[in-house]
Amino acid sequence: MEQPSRSAGTVRPGGRTARVRASVLDATQDELVEHGFHGLTMDQVAARAGVGKTTVYRRWGSTAGLVADLMTELANQSSPHADTGGIEGDLRANALSVLGALTDGRLGATFQAVIAAATCDEEAAQALRTFYSRRIGEWAHVVDLAVKRGELPEGTDGTEVIRAVSAPLYYRLVVTREPVTREAAERSAARALAAAKAGAFVIPGDDA
Amino acid sequence: MEQPSRSAGTVRPGGRTARVRASVLDATQDELVEHGFHGLTMDQVAARAGVGKTTVYRRWGSTAGLVADLMTELANQSSPHADTGGIEGDLRANALSVLGALTDGRLGATFQAVIAAATCDEEAAQALRTFYSRRIGEWAHVVDLAVKRGELPEGTDGTEVIRAVSAPLYYRLVVTREPVTREAAERSAARALAAAKAGAFVIPGDDA
Repeated sequence: MEQPSRSAGTVRPGGRTARVRASVLDATQDELVEHGFHGLTMDQVAARAGVGKTTVYRRWGSTAGLVADLMTELANQSSPHADTGGIEGDLRANALSVLGALTDGRLGATFQAVIAAATCDEEAAQALRTFYSRRIGEWAHVVDLAVKRGELPEGTDGTEVIRAVSAPLYYRLVVTREPVTREAAERSAARALAAAKAGAFVIPGDDA
Repeated sequence: MEQPSRSAGTVRPGGRTARVRASVLDATQDELVEHGFHGLTMDQVAARAGVGKTTVYRRWGSTAGLVADLMTELANQSSPHADTGGIEGDLRANALSVLGALTDGRLGATFQAVIAAATCDEEAAQALRTFYSRRIGEWAHVVDLAVKRGELPEGTDGTEVIRAVSAPLYYRLVVTREPVTREAAERSAARALAAAKAGAFVIPGDDA
């Protein structure tokens, strides 16, 4: 969802355990991008990472376990929310950040592979749910700040505004299979903002 | 995307060719729902449909060909756009129609299977693109009528408004894996309408 470094393998230096995890997650991402979730095997990840199979089986258990840990690492590496000083700039930054992730060859393919996996694997679905819950929660703060500044109505649901910025971009990418462009991203931010200013994201009974 | 009869097999009566197609598409949908696109095989579809393998190979060529024809049939069976006399009712009807499709066990699973297939198969991607292009184009008329009635600003892009109603529902279904509820559908329609009324769907330079 964000602009981070594009590979799960570029984690901070650490001991041998951290290096093994970095290699395995990097190999997992490579295999996902090349072969999809259905083509992902523990043995191939181990071989590609140069790590013993038993280590991979013992530590991650299954290919779904690998994908879940990869998504955790991608969430850890994601950049914090923007703070441009205004909600228009912040939502635009969010839209461009999503655009950057979805149109990055390696990261975009990773998200598509995990989205496909989640249609038939509950562990992969849970990994997505956790990833987006973290990222949406992180960015929702920009809406809360805008409410405090008086830019948006009291009671505006920040998580829903952030979902509304992302949704049209993912919809184009994986549902209607239409191009995801900078124009689409900027329009998505502008439309979410227009609806938010009109009070359409105020949850009834929510007086946050 | 729509409320139609829930099975591609319930096509209008016809000759033997039509009956064979109905059986094969029904079997394709059953297999997709049960095994996903990766588990779809020509032989199994032929066996389930009670049709000779050579017929299935000759007429559809590949599993992607079967999926493309299934999507064509689902588009053919989809109900026409609503006409409640007002844009608020029409967009709400659109959102509830999408909700009905996505939460229908068989139809929802079909869409998820094809969305997953499209992440790694260009023919499946093209089938989705064609399906949504038809359905979005059909529903865009309700926006054009609203512009004529003076409910929405001149130049409002109807296809973009319809995409905006659907996007948050598909986003919950396949990306964030959150529940797709009636409340989410009604809010999505209300938010798209608020943004449209604010002029956020007027395409610059478009004086349609």
